[in-house]
Amino acid sequence: MPPEDRFIAETRLRVRYQETDSMGIVHHSNYVTFLEEGRSDYARQRGHPYSTFEKEGLYLAVTEVNVRYIKPAHYEQEIVVCSWITAMQSRGMSFSYEIVDATTRELLTTAQTRHICINEAGQVARLPDSWRAWGST
Amino acid sequence: MPPEDRFIAETRLRVRYQETDSMGIVHHSNYVTFLEEGRSDYARQRGHPYSTFEKEGLYLAVTEVNVRYIKPAHYEQEIVVCSWITAMQSRGMSFSYEIVDATTRELLTTAQTRHICINEAGQVARLPDSWRAWGST
Amino acid sequence: MPPEDRFIAETRLRVRYQETDSMGIVHHSNYVTFLEEGRSDYARQRGHPYSTFEKEGLYLAVTEVNVRYIKPAHYEQEIVVCSWITAMQSRGMSFSYEIVDATTRELLTTAQTRHICINEAGQVARLPDSWRAWGST
Amino acid sequence: MPPEDRFIAETRLRVRYQETDSMGIVHHSNYVTFLEEGRSDYARQRGHPYSTFEKEGLYLAVTEVNVRYIKPAHYEQEIVVCSWITAMQSRGMSFSYEIVDATTRELLTTAQTRHICINEAGQVARLPDSWRAWGST
Repeated sequence: MPPEDRFIAETRLRVRYQETDSMGIVHHSNYVTFLEEGRSDYARQRGHPYSTFEKEGLYLAVTEVNVRYIKPAHYEQEIVVCSWITAMQSRGMSFSYEIVDATTRELLTTAQTRHICINEAGQVARLPDSWRAWGST
Repeated sequence: MPPEDRFIAETRLRVRYQETDSMGIVHHSNYVTFLEEGRSDYARQRGHPYSTFEKEGLYLAVTEVNVRYIKPAHYEQEIVVCSWITAMQSRGMSFSYEIVDATTRELLTTAQTRHICINEAGQVARLPDSWRAWGST
Repeated sequence: MPPEDRFIAETRLRVRYQETDSMGIVHHSNYVTFLEEGRSDYARQRGHPYSTFEKEGLYLAVTEVNVRYIKPAHYEQEIVVCSWITAMQSRGMSFSYEIVDATTRELLTTAQTRHICINEAGQVARLPDSWRAWGST
Repeated sequence: MPPEDRFIAETRLRVRYQETDSMGIVHHSNYVTFLEEGRSDYARQRGHPYSTFEKEGLYLAVTEVNVRYIKPAHYEQEIVVCSWITAMQSRGMSFSYEIVDATTRELLTTAQTRHICINEAGQVARLPDSWRAWGST
């Protein structure tokens, strides 16, 4: 369960036909994109979208992705990505996620991602203060 | 059939599981990527890879894609993308394609794409002479 | 412009980071998926979702896709896919599309797709009457 | 480093333009597909392709994916996916992977995936003996 004392972004997505595979379920690689949409929406909901972040010459590179697949999603199913921050350092951060069915809230996937902040020269850089502040809730 | 008097690049690909969909066949959007791989390989075979092109500050933007789907491809099937140039202007070019089964040469897809050359400022630009020369064969 | 006497489905999408490419714009293959989302939403809005269609043992295979790229879309941009039916036969149908910016309504892409109805045996089949009826508006 | 006493499948891939993103590098979700191509090739190299596996009414569902991103790959770069089996049970198995540059052998990514065997009814099933035998080397 997402922790009660954290800011949780809930992002609703509908499974696309293109995201299915020959097994008739969502191909497992697409969940990595769903997590990214969760993170993007988290930043928008907190008032500093990732597109603004990039305009400041910063990138949030992914250093680690861990996904556990519990129950598959299917075409046209509505799902919700719940995203929250689990660690914040001066130059990096971690997110956790749960993906659930939008109607039943049944758990489909759990995941964690780790990130570092880099600048346009490809060097590790400090996260902006506006992002750093998210670490406290 | 590809014309006999043109340079034809043949690019062999094996269908990935991720490229299939719930119908058990390759999702139709992936053929657009197969065409791009055909074009990329065409440029490599002719000695001026697209990655070099971009290092020169030029991009080949896609302005039109037309695809006819004749027979579906399946997971693990080996296919060949045949690519050739059908028109060359100072600032743009067109490719035609046939995608066939690698073993039987059965025709799966035909396609055409159109492109314009743009520079880093997003302005229409002249194609490099090395590419222009491809138009004659 | 979409015709005034037809049923137009408007489907709002937000560009995903995964959909961008090294040019910093949406990769052109993703528009084919956007069109599919437009079609899917069209069927939902008219009350007979494509997932129901497949449960009846029918598939709507894509036989042709034509896309013209007018202006690129970028990460986080909100776009609208406008989809309408341009031809309806007993065993096939055609859609036209315009993709516009959600705020300015600036035209980004126009497209057409053609489809045939097939059954689980892979044979061409009659479209269900509920879908056929869409052809008149 | 891949262990010396295991069967290692080496699978060469060339990065596609479609696989890049606005950062100018391969989007991190694509590595999950590269791993799947490694697994597919592993099964082909050992003489029992996954397409045959599915024809026997079995599926190898993914239950877990863990990826560490060390160095990014770029458009047209040739990479090698090294895949080997790290655990084999009656109804499941695990793979480990290293993705390296094809020329320099520089390490780009490490990963592990876990899988269970399911039948067409969606029930957990025994892996075929031909696959089970891979666990010993």
